[in-house]
Formats: sequence, structure tokens, C-alpha cells
Amino acid sequence: MPETHSRRRHALRELLREADLDALLVTDLLNIRYLTGFTGSQAAVVVHAADEPGAERATAFSTDGRYSTQAAEQVPDLERIIERPSELVLAEHVAKAPDRYRRTGFESQHVTVDGRDALAEAAPGIELTRAPGLVERLRLVKDAAEVDAIRMACAAADRALADLIEHGGLRPGRTELEVARELEARMLEHGAAGPAFDTIVAAGAHSAIPHHRPTSAALAAGDFVKMDFGALVDGYHSDMTRTVVLGAPADWQREVYELVHAAQAAGRGAVRVGTDVRDVDGAARQVIDDAGYGERYPHSVGHGVGLEIHEAPALSQRGDGRIEEGMVVTVEPGVYLPERGGVRIEDTLAVRESTPELLTLTTKELVAV
Amino acid sequence: MPETHSRRRHALRELLREADLDALLVTDLLNIRYLTGFTGSQAAVVVHAADEPGAERATAFSTDGRYSTQAAEQVPDLERIIERPSELVLAEHVAKAPDRYRRTGFESQHVTVDGRDALAEAAPGIELTRAPGLVERLRLVKDAAEVDAIRMACAAADRALADLIEHGGLRPGRTELEVARELEARMLEHGAAGPAFDTIVAAGAHSAIPHHRPTSAALAAGDFVKMDFGALVDGYHSDMTRTVVLGAPADWQREVYELVHAAQAAGRGAVRVGTDVRDVDGAARQVIDDAGYGERYPHSVGHGVGLEIHEAPALSQRGDGRIEEGMVVTVEPGVYLPERGGVRIEDTLAVRESTPELLTLTTKELVAV
Repeated sequence: MPETHSRRRHALRELLREADLDALLVTDLLNIRYLTGFTGSQAAVVVHAADEPGAERATAFSTDGRYSTQAAEQVPDLERIIERPSELVLAEHVAKAPDRYRRTGFESQHVTVDGRDALAEAAPGIELTRAPGLVERLRLVKDAAEVDAIRMACAAADRALADLIEHGGLRPGRTELEVARELEARMLEHGAAGPAFDTIVAAGAHSAIPHHRPTSAALAAGDFVKMDFGALVDGYHSDMTRTVVLGAPADWQREVYELVHAAQAAGRGAVRVGTDVRDVDGAARQVIDDAGYGERYPHSVGHGVGLEIHEAPALSQRGDGRIEEGMVVTVEPGVYLPERGGVRIEDTLAVRESTPELLTLTTKELVAV
Repeated sequence: MPETHSRRRHALRELLREADLDALLVTDLLNIRYLTGFTGSQAAVVVHAADEPGAERATAFSTDGRYSTQAAEQVPDLERIIERPSELVLAEHVAKAPDRYRRTGFESQHVTVDGRDALAEAAPGIELTRAPGLVERLRLVKDAAEVDAIRMACAAADRALADLIEHGGLRPGRTELEVARELEARMLEHGAAGPAFDTIVAAGAHSAIPHHRPTSAALAAGDFVKMDFGALVDGYHSDMTRTVVLGAPADWQREVYELVHAAQAAGRGAVRVGTDVRDVDGAARQVIDDAGYGERYPHSVGHGVGLEIHEAPALSQRGDGRIEEGMVVTVEPGVYLPERGGVRIEDTLAVRESTPELLTLTTKELVAV
């Protein structure tokens, strides 16, 4: 693991040189975790552009006394300064060598207005420079360790849903909240550290609400039951939606389901290296538009997944950029008929040179339970 | 519930007038939830200083299409603008009436450097003014609805631990991770929406690490088992630590336990209206210092708990301010002996006019399981 993090820091150095920075002060905890493996709640790291892997003399890490043992284990390969608040400790640290750290970037998309002032006060003589999104640019493309963690998170969710159905957990009379809690508990049994986000279970007319929060409403025969949930493993998220029918599907339910199923397949088919992200959105949207349901599909087709449940790239008409090998994204179109019910089908996929790797493996055929 | 939120917005107006602001643009999601009840993941609200409860004509809320139904239910009493990104939508909204919103504050402790620029661009003609911490100042003192939620969260944790012990969940051979997951699953059974934070279970020498993350290490006879965990109910957190012994306690374990027990009682005793927060820390610290263990107690005595697991006030030598009626705080001293083991005892308390109300009710006597 130290090699993984050392490699990531070295990839960052190339971006620092392109941005003409001597160093970057990284204060976002997820970016710190990505660059060092540190999982505590208070830390900062300064990465120097001129360092070499195995001899990172001007790169330093800081956390506080609560985490000194943990930091020694997780970040054995960097100088560690145990004092807080770590971002100001490192600002003072670089200010002691102004020639070496002259132009130090900060994460202007994370640092607050008040926080920037505090950094400037702690680092007189340093040219604090806006440097948004550099680590995020690296995080766009997942390395093997990251895909492994997401794959495990997806497997925990797949197994939780299979167990839920096998043990009769979806039946008339149970509440949405009970189903949500059982899914979350079963993900824990299958190795999740927790849910990836607040589990959505939406039955009957509630399934027409794209982001419904589970209530004490009971499931009833004939309901669509839409479940959007995921697991957290080693800090990485999974994201999957399945919609089933309680009992025999009505014709209108089959029709809506088949439409979303076709749109989702079209979206997945468009996840190809080099495709504009707007065209992935467009591929699924076209299917729904053509069927006359465009107004019943009020969100975009997907998003990146990793250390955050929603991260770049946005697969949306407002997104930009192209699909790259190693990205991990969701594809999740839906159609929602107010007062009646809705369907969303969502997978998490890893982009490969040819066909993407499906990480969520639960069937997408219409399941009647 | 709408009355609760209307009342909170009206309390905020007094702070706006004191700060000579026409309005405040609130963009922090927890502050938005506090002021409106909205629980979605994308929103903003602008609160006008001159509005009256029941007639909030210049106060407006924004979220996006995913949440339009939810917003209609949760925020029935405010003008709703369904478009995103909501903070820019409201910035444009206020810029249309520059006389009315001339001096509009923004949450400079939450808004990023890049985000502030985007707001300024969207709101030409508005004097965007730093206004850090106004809603947080209100959140320092919990109202009855908030204490009720925290009490339920504390009860879920109490019951989970009781069930765990009653069902033999603490025994040699089980791993820290298994115990952590069982605690979390049992909190779900008792009404928690999830854990309040990453559950700490630390056995044997691991208990000497203040913020240990549970591993696959097995519990052994004679171990201290330190469990720091909490539940999440309606967005509110609980926080409790208990340390038990597996089997008969050794003399050194009794000694350390009794010391921390006495320090925790002293800390709780100091949680009185009007006390300086540093003196609450000092009361517990003095007990440990007097016994010669001051160096083995590397953290502060407690913190506020509410919509965040750690929020103001900090009960710390670095904190400032005084204890106020209605605050909800933890008291959690610990003593950690490297390589041997450690003890922390933590309660969540609501400050009352006289003795604080204990919200975590599990016994603090030394339990041998």
C-alpha cells in the first residue's frame, strides 16, 4: 500500500509542474486519504513538486496526538508532524523555507473563505495560489486497488439484496424503513463498514419520488418497490438501484419497466472510452424521449463513484469531458409516474478498453417477489 | 414541525439585525436542515431580516427537481425555487431586488474560495458580506425537538450495548470488527438510521489507542474492551464510550478504571450553567493529573453533539465560552497505558438549570463480562 500512495503522489507532481507550483497543500480529507492512506479525521499534507519517490524530503504530513500511532502505521513513508490544526501547522512549516515552497497551491474548491485567510496569516512570504481540483483529476481514473474496493462494496450490496429476497424480506405489510434497515444490516454482514448513503426504499406511489426517504408506510401487493442503496468498503462506495414488483406485474408496470430497462442498456452501451459524457446521458435519454416519457425523467444518467458517492465525471447534459479507461461510473435512468409509481435501474461500472466491467451483478430482469 | 423551523428562522433574524445584514444566504446543508427541516443533499435558503413569522415574503428556499415533492412536504411554508445549483439560483434571485437584499451575508466558514467567487458573479450589485457562524450560534442551544432526537439516539445505543452483552456478544475469540458490526446492527434494530460515526471497538493493548479502528484481532480473556459508538436518529447523533473487562479485572485495571470513573464524575459535576468550558475540562483533568497520569490523557474532555457528532462548544483548554442551559455535550476523559490498555468513559448530557440530564444511561460501574 505505501507504494500505491507514493505512486499517486508522484502522479500529482506532474500536475504541479504543469501548474507551475512548487508544492500543493492538500487539506481535503478524501484527497489526503487518496495520497497517503490516512483515514483519521484531522490532517493535512504538503506535496513538493521536486521530490522523488522513496526520497520525499520536502513532502510532509501532519495530524494530531489522537492519531500518532495510526499515522505511524498508515503513513510510514513521510515526515510526520504531530500537532494541530494540521493545515496551519503545515502552512507555518512551509513558511520556514520560503525559497523552497515559494508558490504553494491550496485547494480553493475546498478551503473556505475564512480558512484561506488563516492560511495566509500562518504563511507570510508564501505565494498561496489557487489550485482547484488537481487531486480530483487523478481520482477520476481508478487504480486497481480502488476498483477492488468498489467491487467488494458492490458485492456486499448484491448479496444483501439476494438475502433479503431469499428470506422473504419483501412482502406486503413490511414497512419501507424495515426493508431499508434489513438491507443495511445485511450489507454489514457481507463486509460493509456501513451504507454508502441513506438507503432509499420506496413502495407504491412513493416509487414515483426519485429520492424518496423510507417511511413507516407498508408495502402492498402490486407495488413497485424501488431500492437505491450501496455499501462502503475501505472508504469506497457502491451504488445500485433495483425495482421489483410485489406480486404479478400489471401491464403498465411491465411497459415502464421495459422502457427503463432498454434506456439503461443504451446508457451502458454508450460507456466507451472517448465518448463525450453528454452522449452517455443522451443515449439513455433518447430511448425515454422517443417513448414520450421525457418529462418523467427529471435527472441525469449517472456519476462517478469512488471515495465519494457522487464524484466526477457527471454523466449529464451539464457535464463535460470524455469517458476514460478506469473511470467507475453509474448508469441509472428512471421513469416516474406521479401517484402511480416509478422505476429506476442502476449499475456501477468500471470503464475498460472494450466493454465496461459490470460491478453490480444483480439481475436487471423484472423480478416479481 | 413547521412552527419549530419558523421559530428558528425568527431567532436568526435577531442575529442578522445585530450584524447589520439585510439577509443571510445559508448554504451549509446542516444549517439548512436546522432552519427548514429539509433533508435533501442540494439546497440553499435566504433568510431576510425584516420578515415576520407566517409572512416570510423575502425568505426563499431552493432545491432541484429530484427533491421537489420532498421540499413541498418538508418546507411548505417558504417560497420554493426548484432549480440548481441552489446557492447560485438564490444569489441571482436576490440580485433582482438589490435594494431589498443590499447587504447579504454568506457563511464564510463554509463557502469555499471558489464558491465565493461564483456567488459574487451571480449577484452583481449585492454587498456579499462575511457572516460566519450565525446559525451555529443558535444551534449551540438545543430546543426540545432536538433533545428528543438525541435522547432517542442515546437510547438506541444503550439498548444495543445491553443486547450485545446479554446475548454473549462480548467473549474471547470474537473480533473487534464483529463486535462493532453487531453494535451497529443492534442500533438499527432499536430505531437508529445508522451509526453516528465509525464505531470504535478496541480490545487489549488496542484499548490504549484513543481512536482505534476495529480490526480482525480477537478479544482475549483479561482484555479491556473499549467501545465508543453512537446512533443517528432524525439527523441527530449520540456518543457514548464504555470500557468493560473480559473476565475478572486485574488490580491495575481496577485502578485505572476507578481513576477515569472519578475524573468523569468530576467532569459531569462541572457541567453547570455559567461555567467556563475550560473549567469543565479542568475539573476532569485535575483528577487525572493529581494521580500522576496527566501524560496518559492526550485529549480534551468533551464536545457538543447535535446535527454534527462534533460541534460547538469544545470542552477543552483551547475552547472558549460558558456552559448554557440546553447545550448537549459529552464528557469523556480517558487514561491510556501504551501496550497494556486504556479506559475511556463517556456520556452525552443535556445541560439543565440544575443537574444535567444524563442521556446515555448504561451503567458506568466496572462491568466484568
